[in-house]
Amino acid sequence: MNKHVISVDMGGTNIRVGVVNQYGEVKKKRSMLTNAHLGKESVVERLIALIQDMHKSCIQEYEIIGLSLAVPGPYDVNSGVFYNPPNLPGWDRFHFRDIIEKHLNIPIYIINDANAAVLGEYIYGAGADNKIRHLVYLTLGTGVGSGAIINGELLLGSRGFAPEFGHMTIDKNGPVCNCGNVGCLEALVSGTAISKLIRGKIGNGDASILNDMCNRKINQINAEMVAEAAENGDRLALSVIKEAGSNLGIGLVNIIHSFDPEIIVFGGGLSASLGMMMPSIKSEISQRVMNNQKDKVKLVVSKIEENVALLGASSVFFDAMKNEKQN
Amino acid sequence: MNKHVISVDMGGTNIRVGVVNQYGEVKKKRSMLTNAHLGKESVVERLIALIQDMHKSCIQEYEIIGLSLAVPGPYDVNSGVFYNPPNLPGWDRFHFRDIIEKHLNIPIYIINDANAAVLGEYIYGAGADNKIRHLVYLTLGTGVGSGAIINGELLLGSRGFAPEFGHMTIDKNGPVCNCGNVGCLEALVSGTAISKLIRGKIGNGDASILNDMCNRKINQINAEMVAEAAENGDRLALSVIKEAGSNLGIGLVNIIHSFDPEIIVFGGGLSASLGMMMPSIKSEISQRVMNNQKDKVKLVVSKIEENVALLGASSVFFDAMKNEKQN
Repeated sequence: MNKHVISVDMGGTNIRVGVVNQYGEVKKKRSMLTNAHLGKESVVERLIALIQDMHKSCIQEYEIIGLSLAVPGPYDVNSGVFYNPPNLPGWDRFHFRDIIEKHLNIPIYIINDANAAVLGEYIYGAGADNKIRHLVYLTLGTGVGSGAIINGELLLGSRGFAPEFGHMTIDKNGPVCNCGNVGCLEALVSGTAISKLIRGKIGNGDASILNDMCNRKINQINAEMVAEAAENGDRLALSVIKEAGSNLGIGLVNIIHSFDPEIIVFGGGLSASLGMMMPSIKSEISQRVMNNQKDKVKLVVSKIEENVALLGASSVFFDAMKNEKQN
Repeated sequence: MNKHVISVDMGGTNIRVGVVNQYGEVKKKRSMLTNAHLGKESVVERLIALIQDMHKSCIQEYEIIGLSLAVPGPYDVNSGVFYNPPNLPGWDRFHFRDIIEKHLNIPIYIINDANAAVLGEYIYGAGADNKIRHLVYLTLGTGVGSGAIINGELLLGSRGFAPEFGHMTIDKNGPVCNCGNVGCLEALVSGTAISKLIRGKIGNGDASILNDMCNRKINQINAEMVAEAAENGDRLALSVIKEAGSNLGIGLVNIIHSFDPEIIVFGGGLSASLGMMMPSIKSEISQRVMNNQKDKVKLVVSKIEENVALLGASSVFFDAMKNEKQN
């Protein structure tokens, strides 16, 4: 019987659970709303019920060897504790691993969701071509998440907090970021940043079809609506998306100079707008990158995005199993 | 007989050659001026003569197993070719390794000087405490060089160009850098940046004892003079050094967020001014760093700086030897 892992992608909005084998095949899948506002006890209770339910419903069919969870950061893999995760308000200093382990009698791995995504992409996605050994992954959504593979290994840092490219300052006099820092990539290119920027411009009287699209309720404008308006030829929306692209280009140059990767992969809700951003991204890179790096790094959009965190989380389990066998 | 390596630290100004054993003891040492303006043929000819001379003079006394060279970047370790190294004008696309190997009949390793320095610091300096697995090294001098150890391994990147923290943009609207990019750390905190900044201010009429120190030849002001003036209480000099410290702090936050290191070590001529910079460095970090990283990363000045690149370069050789034995 093929070995399988129950894999969980725990987001601020949705929690997805899948049964995954070591070939990256997702056999069963369920999901529920996170409903983080109901409090961490409620989330954990429903999460455990969902996992137990999944376990029960497939144990006849598949050999389940463990549970892997991809969770939003900052999460300390050593202590199993969250540090003020922006997408899970109220979870600061929450001893998550202890609680999960108390309720589930099965080997458990927990990993940062951006690290799960980069592993998924490296093993089953854009990095599946075995020649690639250095890959950076950026999720562009409400925030900017990131992960990196260096010489075939996951970059974790001394306490598992690396990398946070979203909180790299590229404009020291720029807008304040949710993290408290100033001019971070996330404060300039995320969905939140894009909506904030265009709301300000429309509030100042700039013309845009978004005015009608949101029924003059400016605060309801989100990044998807900006993308839609831009696709329909709205000049203000397009200029804001281009500006975000320029800023992303500057951040990518920092990543290229720091890591010298072969490929940078984009995921997340905003990656749909990447086509519109690409000219300004590329122009910024070509102006700023050092000569030896000109036209060397591939930029691609993830093709396995829907399952990428589930796949990555499960891979950690299979990898650990392989290493145990070798030792 | 103890095994030794001839180790070379090839800088833009001086070339140092030492005989090093695997305990990090430098047994003999010589140096010469690089005189890069005389052309690469002249440099290589004198370099080879110096190495041959060193080899001859110590071969009776020590078992020499190879030659390690630390060279300024960008240098492609795979092809053995330089890419427009700013400190070696005229060396662009120069097939350095081929020429060295043609003239010296001995096993040869060539490594980027910042990578040699970080290895030296990791093995024999601030990282010699074995608990440290993640260390970043910054040389603050004419430019800003950098190296990183990640989980005990040297960060090289896909083509050996990583990391270039000196060319990380922290102010997208900042001053143009020698590399062509804008608002790089190097353009804001290097010796060159500090002298340029204060020359501008004095040129605009700001009062400073530097005016007398340079006999009104503003263009002769360098970073050492600025440090001396600041130590003597010159307010303009001190304000410029503090400004560089603030910018360095912002860059360090980017490094901390990207790599989550345990320690950051400083070397280079400017590290003497680090004491004066430290209050503004620390204030910037404490304002900007994410909560989970507050007060976690140690900042120290290298204690083995004089020999750090020689030691690091030699360690590459001993390491390779160890690995060969293991295989």
